Amino acid sequence: MTHQAAIALGQSLRVLSEKPDDSAALVAADVRIGTHTDLAALREFAKGCEAVTFDHEHVPTAHIAALAAEGVKIYPGAEAILFAQDKQQMRERLAAMGAPVPLWRAVSSAADISDFASTVAQARGGTGWPVVAKAVRGGYDGRGVWMLGGLEAASDLVSTGTPLIVEEKVPLRRELAALVARSPFGQVAAYPVVETVQQDGICVEVLAPAPGLAEELAVEAQQLAIDLANELGVVGLLAVELFETDNGIVVNELAMRPHNSGHWTIEGARTSQFEQHLRAVLDYPMGETSLTAPAVVMANVLGGEPGGMSIDERLHHLFAEDPGARVHLYGKQVRPGRKIGHVTVLGDDMTSVRARAVRAARWLQEGS
Amino acid sequence: MTHQAAIALGQSLRVLSEKPDDSAALVAADVRIGTHTDLAALREFAKGCEAVTFDHEHVPTAHIAALAAEGVKIYPGAEAILFAQDKQQMRERLAAMGAPVPLWRAVSSAADISDFASTVAQARGGTGWPVVAKAVRGGYDGRGVWMLGGLEAASDLVSTGTPLIVEEKVPLRRELAALVARSPFGQVAAYPVVETVQQDGICVEVLAPAPGLAEELAVEAQQLAIDLANELGVVGLLAVELFETDNGIVVNELAMRPHNSGHWTIEGARTSQFEQHLRAVLDYPMGETSLTAPAVVMANVLGGEPGGMSIDERLHHLFAEDPGARVHLYGKQVRPGRKIGHVTVLGDDMTSVRARAVRAARWLQEGS
Repeated sequence: MTHQAAIALGQSLRVLSEKPDDSAALVAADVRIGTHTDLAALREFAKGCEAVTFDHEHVPTAHIAALAAEGVKIYPGAEAILFAQDKQQMRERLAAMGAPVPLWRAVSSAADISDFASTVAQARGGTGWPVVAKAVRGGYDGRGVWMLGGLEAASDLVSTGTPLIVEEKVPLRRELAALVARSPFGQVAAYPVVETVQQDGICVEVLAPAPGLAEELAVEAQQLAIDLANELGVVGLLAVELFETDNGIVVNELAMRPHNSGHWTIEGARTSQFEQHLRAVLDYPMGETSLTAPAVVMANVLGGEPGGMSIDERLHHLFAEDPGARVHLYGKQVRPGRKIGHVTVLGDDMTSVRARAVRAARWLQEGS
Repeated sequence: MTHQAAIALGQSLRVLSEKPDDSAALVAADVRIGTHTDLAALREFAKGCEAVTFDHEHVPTAHIAALAAEGVKIYPGAEAILFAQDKQQMRERLAAMGAPVPLWRAVSSAADISDFASTVAQARGGTGWPVVAKAVRGGYDGRGVWMLGGLEAASDLVSTGTPLIVEEKVPLRRELAALVARSPFGQVAAYPVVETVQQDGICVEVLAPAPGLAEELAVEAQQLAIDLANELGVVGLLAVELFETDNGIVVNELAMRPHNSGHWTIEGARTSQFEQHLRAVLDYPMGETSLTAPAVVMANVLGGEPGGMSIDERLHHLFAEDPGARVHLYGKQVRPGRKIGHVTVLGDDMTSVRARAVRAARWLQEGS
């Protein structure tokens, strides 16, 4: 999707890909096979590039810093992306900034976790359990997050040796996301705040704008994302995943890349997040972020069970049934539960738009 | 731009390109160097392709027919594309269908042309001059079209040996274009009729929808395009370039490919012409063609005089001045007068939208 945006700007992406059949490698003209953890491969890759960026946050910060020191324009920088890689660093920094975060603690024993549960009980009432445990590094789509019901579960998890933080289970109304982009010059553009709907820890729908969100809360979320982008020195996109609670918003996670919560912008905003990210890393002025329709819904297509109708056949039926559904398929091998594409629907009425998007995504997923 | 649309459908284009630095070759993953007049190259190219199509109409019909006979799904077919390649065949067929065409004649001498002028004078009054001469094959962007003031100019042109037809100079109010797409199944989808603004024979602006066009004339133009697509058996896009006169519409030219008069659809219609063309040649149901905003204007960016600010610098300034302008650059070498990109602006008011689009395109063209 970033390549689609690059083409419009008269650019062509060079892609560093682990395998020749990775999605981006299937469509870009200039593909180098290599891994993002290999500094020599990164160095070779960067030669002749105008700017270098990522579509995930797993490039080691030491490599990013090394390339930057050698004069490569590589964004987001090591000092920024650290806070999207390391949940402990992120929580510490946000707490220090006074940003709204849940109660949390870095822990190294079951006793630490139990102690934290007591702190939560004292602050919020109740037993303090369950406690949310998160791997400090490497979680994604619900992986690396555990709901601990008590001391026994805590002991089991700690015994795996995974570095952990724990957080209170926030009593949330729903999840929101605030997406901004920041250029090296320091210009920040904010998208309308969206609602993200999760299932089993995976985002399944994004509603833009977040239905019924109070204007002041929307502005607060946008301002928070802008402040974080500035404070952390982000260049490129910053997606701030938020919990909406009875007492306002709380930061859940940060992402610094084109993010699933922003896929709706391809058709739903004047400037897509993919073009916006490119504009930022190429140091162009930011594009307009306003909505192109009153209601926009993105629904993820997850890989269904094998067998039955091919994706191609399903697409035929979907296009016949809903000629206005905008489909994006990623060219990925179908595996149950894997995000293999998404559908976006635009219209005037959120309820009907959402129903169409969900129906379209389910059809592509299940063929029924 | 077709590659951008292909990516969304989970497809990747294979491109047959004469040079490695042709626009499409710069961005696609699978590029074969070869020429469209070489049947062996086409045959080799088509191996393993789901479907084969063109972004110009210069592939010899004999080659298209040969590949189709060998089982290649190649669209539009030879019987259809003939009428976009050969203006004489097109005029004969349209006249036989009863479609609205100007007075015309195939000519082989200056005397023929002079005789034709007399016929025009008799039918329309006046002297019958100037007469519009067109090369039967190969014209593009004003090339291959001559305005003949009298017998001397006619003699000069005939002496070049170019096969010619001549047409009356239609007293037009403005130019329109009706764009449709047709699938092998026979489904046809029609876009809103647009106004095209020409300068020196080159399209410089497209206004969607055509401002102030009477509903009945719009429907007539759409119906005409649908009838032509069906009658000629077009698969893929058909752009019907029209003259609007005091007595209704007259067909000027046909194009069977993603067409400059449809570039506005990338952001301005629910389904872009590029995706629509792919849907047609892949035999998917057609996508929704409705406008995404009340007023959409596309302005072409022509190559300016060399020197001065780079395109990159101009883009910086444009993005700062108009964050909502949608820019498409084609990665072409800049030559004066060559189409190197386009800008699309969307909004509620045609006058202001048009002013923004023209200003943006002029800025990219002239840097001032």
